[in-house]
Amino acid sequence: MTNLTLALDAMGGDHGPHITVPATLQALRLSSFLHIILVGNEAEITPYLSQIETSVRSRIEILHTTEVVSMSDRPVHALRNRKQSSMRLAIELVRDGKADACLSAGNTGALMAMSKVLLKTLPGIDRPALVSCLPAVNKTPVYLLDLGANVSCCSETLFQFAVMGSVLCEAVDKNPSPKVALLNVGIEEIKGNDQVQQAGQLLQQSPQLNYVGFIEGNDLFSGNVDVIVCDGFVGNITLKTSEGIARLLVHQLEKGLQQGFFVRLMAKLIAPRINSVLNQMNPDHYNGASLIGLRGIVVKSHGSADESAYLQAINLAVTEAQRRLPQMIEERLESILLDINS
Amino acid sequence: MTNLTLALDAMGGDHGPHITVPATLQALRLSSFLHIILVGNEAEITPYLSQIETSVRSRIEILHTTEVVSMSDRPVHALRNRKQSSMRLAIELVRDGKADACLSAGNTGALMAMSKVLLKTLPGIDRPALVSCLPAVNKTPVYLLDLGANVSCCSETLFQFAVMGSVLCEAVDKNPSPKVALLNVGIEEIKGNDQVQQAGQLLQQSPQLNYVGFIEGNDLFSGNVDVIVCDGFVGNITLKTSEGIARLLVHQLEKGLQQGFFVRLMAKLIAPRINSVLNQMNPDHYNGASLIGLRGIVVKSHGSADESAYLQAINLAVTEAQRRLPQMIEERLESILLDINS
Repeated sequence: MTNLTLALDAMGGDHGPHITVPATLQALRLSSFLHIILVGNEAEITPYLSQIETSVRSRIEILHTTEVVSMSDRPVHALRNRKQSSMRLAIELVRDGKADACLSAGNTGALMAMSKVLLKTLPGIDRPALVSCLPAVNKTPVYLLDLGANVSCCSETLFQFAVMGSVLCEAVDKNPSPKVALLNVGIEEIKGNDQVQQAGQLLQQSPQLNYVGFIEGNDLFSGNVDVIVCDGFVGNITLKTSEGIARLLVHQLEKGLQQGFFVRLMAKLIAPRINSVLNQMNPDHYNGASLIGLRGIVVKSHGSADESAYLQAINLAVTEAQRRLPQMIEERLESILLDINS
Repeated sequence: MTNLTLALDAMGGDHGPHITVPATLQALRLSSFLHIILVGNEAEITPYLSQIETSVRSRIEILHTTEVVSMSDRPVHALRNRKQSSMRLAIELVRDGKADACLSAGNTGALMAMSKVLLKTLPGIDRPALVSCLPAVNKTPVYLLDLGANVSCCSETLFQFAVMGSVLCEAVDKNPSPKVALLNVGIEEIKGNDQVQQAGQLLQQSPQLNYVGFIEGNDLFSGNVDVIVCDGFVGNITLKTSEGIARLLVHQLEKGLQQGFFVRLMAKLIAPRINSVLNQMNPDHYNGASLIGLRGIVVKSHGSADESAYLQAINLAVTEAQRRLPQMIEERLESILLDINS
């Protein structure tokens, strides 16, 4: 396996090094080809590195900085005033070819703004999109984008998101022809706002994409499509709503089954079966969203991720780096755009 | 109890009179003050009325027409060309003071367009909104509007929806000060698109409303607020997503608990507890959305509603008529607008 280097914003997220460093150690133990540069306050990072075996410690580098982006920093403010922040330095390592991908659990808006300015978008892409999988209620992952990086999108931007989502699915899941749909208030052609209708027309003119039309909210989890496209306002609310209701259902059911001795006993006896269903649905067991459309790999972890969730985000960054995702998107995009313009 | 008359589009929905007439009979048996005008094809309605007790039959009137609005009719087309349709005649009965409310399970877009033209909006309201409760995962109902009647909304329209939602909650749930929130991609003031941000500013200037700020998708079911406002594009997708995931979880859990003799047996023993939780969550057990902001009451049933779901929609129409909802909204709106302009 070719060596890979990740740059981690060790300070980002609700817990900082307390989560990011132990997850780093796990990742390095699992993958001997992996090197990780921890960007952040050395004094806060090193306590977690004592008594680590040399085979792991030798693949860790620390890039010391004390500045951090706070969760309340406006993107423009962070861009102008956080030039030595752990987030920015991690992105710069990717820009300068010193890391193959970077990862942060910090402020999403700042991460988006810094990544766009430092890494630039791919040719033909106006704005990066934040993409992730829906809670895995079905076996096959369903990619939803944009998740909030762009609260307003024109039809052309939605079209570009569709292309990027399709290529991501091709690259990561080896799906030769991902089904792409636009999220809308109905499946009939007359439904929706102007942006969605015009994006649908653009997609119909793209023979290289497997565009299947509009999809409604109640069909998100049907497994009928592989990629679902919408603007960041709708995508963010849709994903958070799904997570909210899944989490609540898990909670209500657990509560319901803890009342009364007999029910508690029976529930315990079949707990493995119930848990296997609930775990499938529980969004807390998934983590990692990617900013795609950039000339470099940037992965965003939930701010509240625990060690195992953060490890998943690291794995996502590794997978994208191994597949050389930005280059794949660039090549496919060029071919699709040529096809449309010819 | 004062007598009330409802006008029912007996032909609307997936099943027409097969569902609407038996539900009508149930409603009339439950409420002796209720009269119902069934609008539709007499030949299709009367078979369901044979051998009905006189005390019920005497409170049913049939307004015969053979024309119907189809689900694929565009709103403008329905408005111009379905002048004798069961949907339109039912709305006209409200306009002409012959019914206190009307109800249809038919084409939502056509119902919205016809209602707006025939009944007109209240003073100060530009566009009616479709409102309903979220799947009742918490004991207290949470109203979400708009659910798809208006796919694009300016800030002024969102503000009007907030006022109407608040008054609806006051009227139906006797809540003296409903907490109103705007659905957004974050709770911080800087988050969201222009419409939501400006609507937030308008709401902050309305001392008569209990506006609590932005709310995110994962907080929809927390019970922290009573009324949630968004444009129809977002609302429709949010509601359908919630319904989709709730329905899927119910299905997955049932499937998971039907495999293996031991699990099946244990599951059967605690089925009442599991079912009570699942029923709470199952959106199929709820029905009835209201078009509010009109000078008359229009209730929309799910097209796929069964008899008991359709009966719930009838009950909603009755409740709104008893509370004289349009008049209540008009009075409160006038007072709120005066307060802002003074």
